[in-house]
Amino acid sequence: MKVSSVNIALLGAGRIGSVHAANIAAHPQANLAYVCDVVPDAAQALSERHGAESAVSAREVIEDASIDAVLIASSTDTHLDLLAVATAAGKPVLCEKPIDLDLKRVDSELGAIDRTQVPVLIGFQRRYDANFAALREDIRSGGIGDLEIVKITSRDPSPPPLAYLRVSGGIFRDMMIHDFDLARWLLGEEPVEVSAVASCLVDSEIGDAGDVDTAVVSMRTGSGKLCQIDNSRRAVYGYDQRVEVLGSAGMSRAENVRSTTVERWTSESVWREKPPPFFLERYADAYRAELDHFVTIVQGDATPYVTTHDGRQALALAETALASSKSARIETPPTAP
Amino acid sequence: MKVSSVNIALLGAGRIGSVHAANIAAHPQANLAYVCDVVPDAAQALSERHGAESAVSAREVIEDASIDAVLIASSTDTHLDLLAVATAAGKPVLCEKPIDLDLKRVDSELGAIDRTQVPVLIGFQRRYDANFAALREDIRSGGIGDLEIVKITSRDPSPPPLAYLRVSGGIFRDMMIHDFDLARWLLGEEPVEVSAVASCLVDSEIGDAGDVDTAVVSMRTGSGKLCQIDNSRRAVYGYDQRVEVLGSAGMSRAENVRSTTVERWTSESVWREKPPPFFLERYADAYRAELDHFVTIVQGDATPYVTTHDGRQALALAETALASSKSARIETPPTAP
Amino acid sequence: MKVSSVNIALLGAGRIGSVHAANIAAHPQANLAYVCDVVPDAAQALSERHGAESAVSAREVIEDASIDAVLIASSTDTHLDLLAVATAAGKPVLCEKPIDLDLKRVDSELGAIDRTQVPVLIGFQRRYDANFAALREDIRSGGIGDLEIVKITSRDPSPPPLAYLRVSGGIFRDMMIHDFDLARWLLGEEPVEVSAVASCLVDSEIGDAGDVDTAVVSMRTGSGKLCQIDNSRRAVYGYDQRVEVLGSAGMSRAENVRSTTVERWTSESVWREKPPPFFLERYADAYRAELDHFVTIVQGDATPYVTTHDGRQALALAETALASSKSARIETPPTAP
Amino acid sequence: MKVSSVNIALLGAGRIGSVHAANIAAHPQANLAYVCDVVPDAAQALSERHGAESAVSAREVIEDASIDAVLIASSTDTHLDLLAVATAAGKPVLCEKPIDLDLKRVDSELGAIDRTQVPVLIGFQRRYDANFAALREDIRSGGIGDLEIVKITSRDPSPPPLAYLRVSGGIFRDMMIHDFDLARWLLGEEPVEVSAVASCLVDSEIGDAGDVDTAVVSMRTGSGKLCQIDNSRRAVYGYDQRVEVLGSAGMSRAENVRSTTVERWTSESVWREKPPPFFLERYADAYRAELDHFVTIVQGDATPYVTTHDGRQALALAETALASSKSARIETPPTAP
Repeated sequence: MKVSSVNIALLGAGRIGSVHAANIAAHPQANLAYVCDVVPDAAQALSERHGAESAVSAREVIEDASIDAVLIASSTDTHLDLLAVATAAGKPVLCEKPIDLDLKRVDSELGAIDRTQVPVLIGFQRRYDANFAALREDIRSGGIGDLEIVKITSRDPSPPPLAYLRVSGGIFRDMMIHDFDLARWLLGEEPVEVSAVASCLVDSEIGDAGDVDTAVVSMRTGSGKLCQIDNSRRAVYGYDQRVEVLGSAGMSRAENVRSTTVERWTSESVWREKPPPFFLERYADAYRAELDHFVTIVQGDATPYVTTHDGRQALALAETALASSKSARIETPPTAP
Repeated sequence: MKVSSVNIALLGAGRIGSVHAANIAAHPQANLAYVCDVVPDAAQALSERHGAESAVSAREVIEDASIDAVLIASSTDTHLDLLAVATAAGKPVLCEKPIDLDLKRVDSELGAIDRTQVPVLIGFQRRYDANFAALREDIRSGGIGDLEIVKITSRDPSPPPLAYLRVSGGIFRDMMIHDFDLARWLLGEEPVEVSAVASCLVDSEIGDAGDVDTAVVSMRTGSGKLCQIDNSRRAVYGYDQRVEVLGSAGMSRAENVRSTTVERWTSESVWREKPPPFFLERYADAYRAELDHFVTIVQGDATPYVTTHDGRQALALAETALASSKSARIETPPTAP
Repeated sequence: MKVSSVNIALLGAGRIGSVHAANIAAHPQANLAYVCDVVPDAAQALSERHGAESAVSAREVIEDASIDAVLIASSTDTHLDLLAVATAAGKPVLCEKPIDLDLKRVDSELGAIDRTQVPVLIGFQRRYDANFAALREDIRSGGIGDLEIVKITSRDPSPPPLAYLRVSGGIFRDMMIHDFDLARWLLGEEPVEVSAVASCLVDSEIGDAGDVDTAVVSMRTGSGKLCQIDNSRRAVYGYDQRVEVLGSAGMSRAENVRSTTVERWTSESVWREKPPPFFLERYADAYRAELDHFVTIVQGDATPYVTTHDGRQALALAETALASSKSARIETPPTAP
Repeated sequence: MKVSSVNIALLGAGRIGSVHAANIAAHPQANLAYVCDVVPDAAQALSERHGAESAVSAREVIEDASIDAVLIASSTDTHLDLLAVATAAGKPVLCEKPIDLDLKRVDSELGAIDRTQVPVLIGFQRRYDANFAALREDIRSGGIGDLEIVKITSRDPSPPPLAYLRVSGGIFRDMMIHDFDLARWLLGEEPVEVSAVASCLVDSEIGDAGDVDTAVVSMRTGSGKLCQIDNSRRAVYGYDQRVEVLGSAGMSRAENVRSTTVERWTSESVWREKPPPFFLERYADAYRAELDHFVTIVQGDATPYVTTHDGRQALALAETALASSKSARIETPPTAP
């Protein structure tokens, strides 16, 4: 029998909502109380799968006295409002990235949310990946000396539907925002120069929609540390997630993971398995660790590891990269208010 | 809420019993009802950790009407008796390896157990490892053509306590028995020639106890397929578990697993993580998959993948290898009655 | 007995001159006739080692009727003048990189050199590396589809002496120029946008000398292909030379080479050898292949694979990167006259 | 100009003779004086390629006063006679393996050869491979503690012609003899128990000819060290040459080499290059190092690294393995007279 189980309301029954629902249901100290979605059928289907209640009104669910915490996995444009409601109600939140697509709005509304002092954890799940965590430990422990360069490769297997792309905020705010968070986390300080060079190479319809699908970014922190990121919306070999850090005493790198260690040697070649198909497989453990950490936060035994300020800074870098890609200048990110 | 949950009684609260207890407790369709051990404190401690009942009499627990299935993880000398009791009571069993240390006794008692037709799954968990399963699929799919050679490397990190070694049945029956099962499973047919060459190199006290700690075995099947196994009781770099299969159209091999993909390049070397410390870590997923399969068997939706006959054959190969190591002859395993 | 041997005069008896001297001496169809250096002792020592004559006047040697070809490995500031003398004398030249440190001077003097139509091969030896050549073949064969991103990692083991750095032209013209050539060769078209972000992190004296020691560059070609380069003057684990190319149908990457395949597994870690210490070891085969190609050119059986135009373009990119690192703008390289 | 060049007569103009001819011709301190073969056209073709004289009578060539040393690469049945002639003439010899196919004959004739005290180097070229040499250094330096197990994988890409197989002496004397030498060299002591299990799986005509094509061997030395060897006449993925050594303080292993480090990631898989096609490519560097060592021996500056005794012992192990494969016993090799 589970004691002191945390009752969680899940807002959003889409792809990432389903991941969180399953993780909550399997967590020994968490209980999936509600699944809420503007599409009633989606809420009902997901809630039934895990023996939860379904709901349509997020506000009612958040304010339900039996609810201990809220997980926001609804569409991006609802994040800030739901964050405001939940924190006002005193309910700790795990909020999917990005906080919003508009830095100005974030800067105007985050203050009130933060002043509630209710814990908010932003869902940059890669920080919970064991491989990247090992790199960070190599930096913090001094194992590679003073950090000098961070290199991040992040490529999706294939572009999302155009309908999604059109409301996504573009490659920098939708996709590279994960890499900006990872970069800040590894660099340990803020980038002050951002240069972005980008193209539409994968699908001309992406370009017609005003976006790009292939982008490289360089950044420089105040103390001179450098960072390179490359993104592509298409890597036919699978979801490509690699990070490398160079320091004065060495270099550490995290390669793509594989589900087995098998090699097959034939008359054609030496064959190995491709990386996982996409983020649900690649970060399955990270999502579980993130949820576990959130439960600990709700129980009062930890504080958020990824703060609203982190969410704001990643968005600021994304907007700066977008600006650089248009201005052909090396741009400086706006500081937080 | 879990429906149609399988009530399992766990017999044996030692190291491997603890693994099974945790897996049963975490399984969505299983319930750990009892933990039974001849040491009452051990049973109580483990049962309390998972909210189960504790018991001392295995027979009473097995015959308890609320119990759907039995997991035998007690000392080896109790396996055959408990198998007899459980199958006579109509309770499906997952029984840890080896069935027994005495092939004669196995051959005399297994008939009655088998005639109950109650499902018995023998705990050769390596068959549930994703890496080795991929090799077997490469064989069965024809991906490497006709199988010719199976090579198994299996080395423990360090020898067990002498007290354990003295009742273990020796390296062939205690340790290499896993490799014999893996070999049979991959070869797809029975070895008919067994040659063993062995030494005591790790600890002379092992030799004083009449055992060896380093052993290599060659086998040949009826159709001429060959197999090599090497075992050592000590690999200072961790638990070494590798398998390679050569066929007419290629070679597949499964390397040791690692918990991260990180490489660290320093002025000394290129560093990578060692393999997992021991079998609990290395086969954590395999034990979960084995338990999951057992639950499916209890539910009537599958049949045992590792049968009592498999358990008997692995023991027969172990005894044959032991005989060869003493006779300096290439020996033939006794066939089943 | 060697027939139709090519008589080569080597200008410059320094580190790279010594490499070329040994390769010429070992080549079955080449003969090291002269070693020429402004330091007579250096010329004499190197010439004696290989049974050649020594000389001080490059002009006299070049114009010696017995000389078939000239290898320019003297200091950078002499390259253009010696190229002019050699081509005027009708002697094919293998000229070390860079052609010069001043693009304006190159653009004003290269025309006369080219008009002689005497073959000139520029010494970007990396094009002769088997690993990078395999990547290029993957691009040209369509093996990875349409090329989208080129990524180059190039890090020296440790900074050169300050005295060298002061006349080197800086990291972009001295070191990254190799990467610019490699990038153009792999991209198959000219970069039209160059963004450089750089720091002095390794040694503050490098900064005091007006240079940087750590730099990242992004580039974009006319058709939108992207390129990332990172350089550091210090990689404590050895000379780091890796290239990766992403295309619409796959990704190919060339890792660092090692002198053996040995892994050592100990209680500490899994150990592998570091990459080679520096370029002499890393590109030993490439220098031999370059010399072999040059001999074929002199014999009239091939044309230069790396032209003076290639030398000019790499320098133009280096100057553009330097400009970008100072202007905080994404710059466009000047086109050739 | 080469001074004190060693004049070498090559006996045998076949496949391996051609390798040695090219290496002698390219060696700065060696001169290929004669190529001798019972097939005059073969001798002439190979000698012309390298500017040497051709001859038919080995004895005349050996006794030619201008000849400093002899390289025996003729058919196996001529080795002992030519060794006798050359050593009687006081000419140092590099003799290809095996010395002979008949241990009795070797034991009766080697005494006279050895008593001449003329240096004889036996051509087990694998000892000159940098990878295996690194393993041996790991053993001798104590890097892996006390040696316990040696594992050798050695597989040819495809069987030789039946005509060759019929006179080859069989898989143990023709192919595994290399592995026996490597094993002795790594073990550092003599095997005293040999167990062989073998099959004909690749080509039934090999079986019809009285030979096997797939074989595994276990050995034990006097002090208890163990060794496993596996051989196959067919590995469709190329020439497979791997060695692993386990000791009390670690494990070292040498993997197959590759000509590039390139990986190609596609929608199908992660591709890497296969190992080299066969021994000429795999051991090209080793053959050069062996020849270089031989030149040093002829010059009086070194003593043979692989002696006639080593050649005799490898043959003794091969005969013992053959006997074991027929007797189904673990056999003891005959000691040298």
